[in-house]
Amino acid sequence: MKILLVGASGTIGSNVHDSLSKNHEITRAGRNGADVQVDIMDEASIRNMYEQTGSVDAVINASGSAGFAPLPELTPEKNETAINSKLKGQINLVLLGLPYMNDGGSFTLTSGIMMDDPIPQGSSAAMANGAIRSFVKSAAIEMPRGIRINSVSPNLLQESAERIGHLFAGFEPVPGGKVARAYQKSVEGMQTGESYEVY
Amino acid sequence: MKILLVGASGTIGSNVHDSLSKNHEITRAGRNGADVQVDIMDEASIRNMYEQTGSVDAVINASGSAGFAPLPELTPEKNETAINSKLKGQINLVLLGLPYMNDGGSFTLTSGIMMDDPIPQGSSAAMANGAIRSFVKSAAIEMPRGIRINSVSPNLLQESAERIGHLFAGFEPVPGGKVARAYQKSVEGMQTGESYEVY
Ligand SMILES: NC(=O)c1ccc[n+]([C@@H]2O[C@H](COP(=O)([O-])OP(=O)(O)OC[C@H]3O[C@@H](n4cnc5c(N)ncnc54)[C@H](OP(=O)(O)O)[C@@H]3O)[C@@H](O)[C@H]2O)c1
Ligand SMILES: NC(=O)c1ccc[n+]([C@@H]2O[C@H](COP(=O)([O-])OP(=O)(O)OC[C@H]3O[C@@H](n4cnc5c(N)ncnc54)[C@H](OP(=O)(O)O)[C@@H]3O)[C@@H](O)[C@H]2O)c1
Repeated sequence: MKILLVGASGTIGSNVHDSLSKNHEITRAGRNGADVQVDIMDEASIRNMYEQTGSVDAVINASGSAGFAPLPELTPEKNETAINSKLKGQINLVLLGLPYMNDGGSFTLTSGIMMDDPIPQGSSAAMANGAIRSFVKSAAIEMPRGIRINSVSPNLLQESAERIGHLFAGFEPVPGGKVARAYQKSVEGMQTGESYEVY
Repeated sequence: MKILLVGASGTIGSNVHDSLSKNHEITRAGRNGADVQVDIMDEASIRNMYEQTGSVDAVINASGSAGFAPLPELTPEKNETAINSKLKGQINLVLLGLPYMNDGGSFTLTSGIMMDDPIPQGSSAAMANGAIRSFVKSAAIEMPRGIRINSVSPNLLQESAERIGHLFAGFEPVPGGKVARAYQKSVEGMQTGESYEVY
């Protein structure tokens, strides 16, 4: 399959790339040094990316950011990062990507465990994660031409534990390879509307 | 208690008002003809509302809108209504309302069954509903001064069945009075971080 992988250079993205590149042709997208440049926070940039890639069999998004702040310090402004990136960025990859998706293709988005097992400073990210799970569940019933859509909700990755593990007290990190298999299930399987929770 | 009820004139809001006004002092808010004017899509308007009400013991939001469109016709632009109203509007009522909330007070937001039991044309609303549920769950663990936060996810109300029932094929509408009791549980009870699903 021809797979467009947004966030390919990241911790999750590189695990997904390793796992899927054996059997598929992957186009890597991101803001820097990828095959195709894209900033998911910018609609015009998403449109431009799809014009360059043309039609695809799968889109995987493994990018997205959110502001971290204790709830009493979370301002509407700080909440915008999650809205523009993790939330709208991912949803716009779907809305603007539909015309480029081949019949029977799939979208796979990324949420995260914080929506189910909340951590301090995580309300804005949890908001975006919950939005993605519910959007996917609802969008799945209306996807045209046999196109499917799922999301993956990873626990903290082992590979990220050194950098951000202090925010996830008592969480048992999971291997990136295990997380990558959920993306593989979404792309190569037949399910739709699912949230694959790799906890 | 002194309760600020946003969307008081609406179908859900008027049921909540009927049920809580016997034992509480309710300030009704909305865009038209309420005690205090507010447009939840406008941060400045929310700030102005709280300056007028001063401190409160509970904020209930029963307002919010979303665009309805079949997924292939849902544009980033049409998705903005749900983001600005149901999603950011409700979250900003919390973020900007915290300084006005009395110790031990509560916020109660509104989501809806479409996030769990999706209907055609409902992806944008489902997105906002899921965002609210996850935000509430996460924000609850960091609320200062014993403040609580919950959301209510109503099924289609019997009172709304004539107007929007055609969108909810096979759904069994629930009485507004039953939905109102979930808001009462949130305000008068002690739970926090809950999504009261009145299905
Ligand atoms: N790592 C974890 O433990 C974990 C667990 C659960 C959920 N998640 C979620 O999974 C997603 C990816 O996490 P990660 O740890 O793999 O992130 P990461 O290592 O920081 O990598 C992010 C990737 O996305 C790209 N990117 C960032 N912002 C972008 C934008 N606006 N437009 C296009 N590409 C962008 C980055 O490349 P450029 O900088 O070149 O654009 C990079 O390839 C995030 O939403 C994160 O919250 C991560
Ligand atoms: N009715 C149902 O069956 C049902 C089921 C599940 C979920 N819900 C959700 O519950 C919420 C309320 O539904 P409803 O049926 O009660 O709505 P409704 O009858 O249309 O009433 C909406 C109320 O909110 C106010 N309002 C609307 N937009 C506002 C804004 N931007 N700022 C401030 N106030 C605003 C309206 O007054 P003004 O026009 O004067 O501002 C009115 O008081 C919605 O989010 C809806 O999706 C409804």
